[in-house]
Amino acid sequence: MLTIDKVYDAARVLEPVVRHTQLIEAPRMSAELSCKLYLKPENLQLTGSFKVRGSAYKISQLTDEEKAHGVIACSAGNHAQGVALAATKQGIKSVICLPAGAPISKVQATKGYGAEVCLVDGVYDDAYAEAIRQRDELGYTFIHPFDDDDVIAGQGTIGLEVLNELPDVDVVVVPVGGGGLISGVAYALKTLKPSVKIYGVQAAGAPSMYNAVTTGVPEKLPSVSTFADGIAVKAPGENTFEYCKKYVDEIVTVTEDEISAAILHLIENQKLIAEGAGAVSVAAVKFGKVPVEGKKVVCIVSGGNIDVTILSRVIDRGLHKSGRACSIVIELIDKPGQLEMVSHIIAECGGNVVSVHHEHGDAQAVNGCFLRLGMETKSFEHIEEIKNSLTKEGFKIIQ
Amino acid sequence: MLTIDKVYDAARVLEPVVRHTQLIEAPRMSAELSCKLYLKPENLQLTGSFKVRGSAYKISQLTDEEKAHGVIACSAGNHAQGVALAATKQGIKSVICLPAGAPISKVQATKGYGAEVCLVDGVYDDAYAEAIRQRDELGYTFIHPFDDDDVIAGQGTIGLEVLNELPDVDVVVVPVGGGGLISGVAYALKTLKPSVKIYGVQAAGAPSMYNAVTTGVPEKLPSVSTFADGIAVKAPGENTFEYCKKYVDEIVTVTEDEISAAILHLIENQKLIAEGAGAVSVAAVKFGKVPVEGKKVVCIVSGGNIDVTILSRVIDRGLHKSGRACSIVIELIDKPGQLEMVSHIIAECGGNVVSVHHEHGDAQAVNGCFLRLGMETKSFEHIEEIKNSLTKEGFKIIQ
Repeated sequence: MLTIDKVYDAARVLEPVVRHTQLIEAPRMSAELSCKLYLKPENLQLTGSFKVRGSAYKISQLTDEEKAHGVIACSAGNHAQGVALAATKQGIKSVICLPAGAPISKVQATKGYGAEVCLVDGVYDDAYAEAIRQRDELGYTFIHPFDDDDVIAGQGTIGLEVLNELPDVDVVVVPVGGGGLISGVAYALKTLKPSVKIYGVQAAGAPSMYNAVTTGVPEKLPSVSTFADGIAVKAPGENTFEYCKKYVDEIVTVTEDEISAAILHLIENQKLIAEGAGAVSVAAVKFGKVPVEGKKVVCIVSGGNIDVTILSRVIDRGLHKSGRACSIVIELIDKPGQLEMVSHIIAECGGNVVSVHHEHGDAQAVNGCFLRLGMETKSFEHIEEIKNSLTKEGFKIIQ
Repeated sequence: MLTIDKVYDAARVLEPVVRHTQLIEAPRMSAELSCKLYLKPENLQLTGSFKVRGSAYKISQLTDEEKAHGVIACSAGNHAQGVALAATKQGIKSVICLPAGAPISKVQATKGYGAEVCLVDGVYDDAYAEAIRQRDELGYTFIHPFDDDDVIAGQGTIGLEVLNELPDVDVVVVPVGGGGLISGVAYALKTLKPSVKIYGVQAAGAPSMYNAVTTGVPEKLPSVSTFADGIAVKAPGENTFEYCKKYVDEIVTVTEDEISAAILHLIENQKLIAEGAGAVSVAAVKFGKVPVEGKKVVCIVSGGNIDVTILSRVIDRGLHKSGRACSIVIELIDKPGQLEMVSHIIAECGGNVVSVHHEHGDAQAVNGCFLRLGMETKSFEHIEEIKNSLTKEGFKIIQ
């Protein structure tokens, strides 16, 4: 059973195991939104996410016999690394079942924290079945990623830390996947300071808890679609659903573009890397999904384990969406000097060409061709200026 | 004159103005290098760099008359934002002279912190001349970016914070441009704990202080070349040169690729964005330029103000250099089904094609052509596996 004493006990147990992350002010967003905004940077937590808290507390509560047998979990992400490090720090064997297609970086990270990795052919459900099979056959204790009161109590220590560092907090915004983090945080805060508002945030492409609290009926989504893999959960937990109904004021959703913009904002203004799941709280505040004006607000940035390939795409998309990169296609007559002239005009305007593709193809004139240019630009106004200069010199911009 | 009392006084004055950044452990590098490594994340400082410390202390020491006239500085970077915020927080007017070609983002950031921005045609030296002209004409106090004992005392507060949080520190590694940061840190630490080793790090393309302490003669470099613009300084300060000679154990240099790798390491393992200048300390440790084995080491990550366009390129380069992205060129006969077959082989191997260019050009056979593919890959071994599979099916990889 979840009690506030259990959350306090978790804080005591976790003291030497996890990092007490310090709130970071977000002056830019505070000014933009007329509030006082802080980030709780659990991306700077050991293993790069809050998950190690719940796992470490859960493992500490096992009997000596259970500890001797070791623990097992199924995850390709933050939970895997959390369980691995928590077990290793407490001198306990851990086995993590992963789908065989999991990114090598995640496999290596999990091994690096001391777990035995078991790659299972198929998808998540197959890896889960294998974990349960090994639990039954070999006597491991299965560590659930969220639907477990000890795990929830461990995540709840974040609530205690927030309240301790910012006693007059008004609003806390929390990413929601299965609901373990928000259950713990909401329970701790509503118990100790009932006036605090707690908002949960899900990706619009994986709104399992949002649907559950809206309709009152938890259902399993047939599929989920979001790059925020840390919260791409098909069904809420039984316990976490009850806690969310009772302690969470509202759950909202954010789009993929809003999540991308939040990640880019955190990079540029806070020098922090958040993963998609970690940035949904900031996205919700930034895009007005929750009321914050005049309030002291804490956004929990729950993790930072984003693949750099994805990160690179997010940045690229963000640059295009903010006018700092653009690609244009010019139709021109295929004769000497045209490329030089285009290049000259763009350079004059201060644009920086980073890619050039010259294609024949479907141009109107037989001697016509297409020139596709990628450019670094300064703003949307700057892009317009470049386009206008090209048009004025007779070039036809078709895209 | 620089005294330890002045550094303590700076700490007292800065208490309500700047953020006391908390050391962050770096477990991965600690394990790789058999040391205990911590980061001092001044990228998380207000304005995204340590510079605000020195400016704020300098400004606090002005007479009431000087304060009434306001301050002026010349910088396109961190110093500009530091002076702007420090002045605004103390209710003082600030003017920042910038070369007209400075990135819009930096101009906006500087304005955002409350400074009046004066764009000057030409390069840095022209902006500097204009700042001096306005100082003489309008009575502003000029705030030097590094060669000033009050500024140095302000930066020295970082040394106090490190020693306070980690009293048994053995080694501190510090980025060096003009030398203000390392002068303050080295002075404070060597005064309070002479056994601490202090290493400075410069970009190999801008080794002004390195040359000065190596040859004993400070000289102005004809030019500098590094993407670490925060430390691209042509000549050391007179004062900072003396402090470096006296208090710094050694200055080393790192290459552009080493700086890039350090930035990527900080993103992936620490979830932190560092700018080039901020990452040189980590680069020096990571690439064995300073002895750290068995020691407690602090790398000062001095700032995080990197343009996202540059960041995107750094990530891209890092992906290619670590086998997680690659581009190959295949020469093939221009007949139906070839592209399909190549795509099939790559997909079978688990590679992810992200760009395709198909060109005629200089192929050996008249009906030959080149296929250039960009792919996301898992490792160098994975790239070899893909290449071998293609070769086995008769495709000729020419790059």
